[in-house]
Amino acid sequence: MEYINIAIDTLGGDNGPSYIVKGALNGLKENPNVRLYLTGNKELLENELKDADYDKNRIVIVGTTEEITTHEHPVEAVRTKKDSSLVVGMQLVKDGKCDALISSGNSGAILAGGQLIIGRIKGVKRTPLAIMVPTLDKPSLFLDCGANVDIKPEVMVQFAKMGSLYMQHVEGIKDPSVAIVNIGAEEEKGNALVKATYPLLKECDDINFIGSIESRDIPYGKADVIVAEAFVGNVIIKLYEGLSKALFKEIKGAMLSSFTSKIGAMLIKKSMKKTLSKFSASNKGGAPLLGLEGLVVKIHGNSKDQEVTSAIRQCVEFIKNDVSGKIKEFIV
Amino acid sequence: MEYINIAIDTLGGDNGPSYIVKGALNGLKENPNVRLYLTGNKELLENELKDADYDKNRIVIVGTTEEITTHEHPVEAVRTKKDSSLVVGMQLVKDGKCDALISSGNSGAILAGGQLIIGRIKGVKRTPLAIMVPTLDKPSLFLDCGANVDIKPEVMVQFAKMGSLYMQHVEGIKDPSVAIVNIGAEEEKGNALVKATYPLLKECDDINFIGSIESRDIPYGKADVIVAEAFVGNVIIKLYEGLSKALFKEIKGAMLSSFTSKIGAMLIKKSMKKTLSKFSASNKGGAPLLGLEGLVVKIHGNSKDQEVTSAIRQCVEFIKNDVSGKIKEFIV
Repeated sequence: MEYINIAIDTLGGDNGPSYIVKGALNGLKENPNVRLYLTGNKELLENELKDADYDKNRIVIVGTTEEITTHEHPVEAVRTKKDSSLVVGMQLVKDGKCDALISSGNSGAILAGGQLIIGRIKGVKRTPLAIMVPTLDKPSLFLDCGANVDIKPEVMVQFAKMGSLYMQHVEGIKDPSVAIVNIGAEEEKGNALVKATYPLLKECDDINFIGSIESRDIPYGKADVIVAEAFVGNVIIKLYEGLSKALFKEIKGAMLSSFTSKIGAMLIKKSMKKTLSKFSASNKGGAPLLGLEGLVVKIHGNSKDQEVTSAIRQCVEFIKNDVSGKIKEFIV
Repeated sequence: MEYINIAIDTLGGDNGPSYIVKGALNGLKENPNVRLYLTGNKELLENELKDADYDKNRIVIVGTTEEITTHEHPVEAVRTKKDSSLVVGMQLVKDGKCDALISSGNSGAILAGGQLIIGRIKGVKRTPLAIMVPTLDKPSLFLDCGANVDIKPEVMVQFAKMGSLYMQHVEGIKDPSVAIVNIGAEEEKGNALVKATYPLLKECDDINFIGSIESRDIPYGKADVIVAEAFVGNVIIKLYEGLSKALFKEIKGAMLSSFTSKIGAMLIKKSMKKTLSKFSASNKGGAPLLGLEGLVVKIHGNSKDQEVTSAIRQCVEFIKNDVSGKIKEFIV
């Protein structure tokens, strides 16, 4: 049987390897054609796996001696910590032993390592980090949330095309709509980058470009793919997460502020949970770094098992449908 | 008695002049040293005022024959509609008859008219639109939310200084903290504009610069003044408003989704209202356009009377404390 080989970096996250291994085992059950390479502390991993029931041929423990932590300088860490769980995982992809890597580690190191170790597809100018944003309707793929600031219009066009291919072949959305973040709906609005990118996107006949989207409309899911330069993208994603969290926390506080309100809270709990789960990203897997010679998926630092399992599913779809091959075919 | 003279554009908003006049009359009562110039449809205004009890010397109706609507091209509208309620109001400021103008009209036309009719203070490079952003703590002044995209670092520094003076002298905050929107906390993070602006802000000894702020921290009120380039600022403000509105709507929907949840909703209503009122901007007045030879305050298109009254209060503080004079002294 030809396996889909996925490396999983079991270190670098906030919760230690336990959740990651649990999610990995679930992913293994769910996907009979997957083999997992777990990089990290050998003893810890053997211990986590010793009572588990799984096909021994389909999990490979790759013992590593180093760990890249959250606060290290990304490029330096990737260059010097050759035996870290992250770098070894990336090397497995580079060497063709694995098709994809999942990591909950240092975001900067993941972005830097993707470029430095795995490398870009020839012709791809920059590799955007794409995030599935929860909305009141269906989720949108938002990119770039990475580190490619101050880019050129042609790069934005590549992002739009890669995002469109991803949504089509991984999320199964036919003819995904693509919008660019702008400060007004009209074509003449925007900064220099957006004004220069807009007409280029309009000319593309291989994407379904629907024009500008204002940030206030993002929560309503008005486009399948949303493109922005990384500074703007980063600001949007972090505000989206931060503001939702702040408001939910405040509302929870209000509910628990008096005896009466506590009873009220109990009565609305069920309806509320259903609503709020729409805004939870954990069942959507991680953020793919697109345009590399292999897939890298960044999951949250505080990921629980569910997110790991979703990320495995996501990698399987990506590889099964040869999205990298399609990027080579359509973008370059 | 020497009056503070404030022009109010009673047209261009979504709700017609009724609310504006109501708010104006309240403002008049609250501020005995204020005289108001109401620009707009003479008959309508006379009708609104005919049964009201107020000091006739302190309201001047300035009849105008034109109106600039939301969808008009800003510069063209300001240039051609010379007898519109907005342009006439601006002309009153230009001619020195009024110290300030309040308008709920077309944002673009307000920004354009400020520059074209009233004009910048000599030495001020760009005039930012500043918005008081509600947070879980005290509100922050956020600028620029206007139209000054792709600006130079020196312009960002002027924004920081004007914002700081405003918070100090209008909101009464001693030594207001100033932060710049960035994609990380470290000084070396950011795009080219932020990287160039950061050291300039650090050098300013007349502001209390506290470094970078990530967008996710904006809802927590971690800085009194937050500076961003207008594209980023516009995206942040619109997402802030849009996402809050979307989430509150969704939560309300959840509360009304079943019989049980409806009862629950009744029980938490009071606590919830208190919480949500923190996130309402109506008692904070409008958005000042800073750096002009006179003050322009933009209020929401759907402003009710309360926001008009608050904006009058805001103008009074601005003029009483001669913020324009201080901008001339400290910025230029």
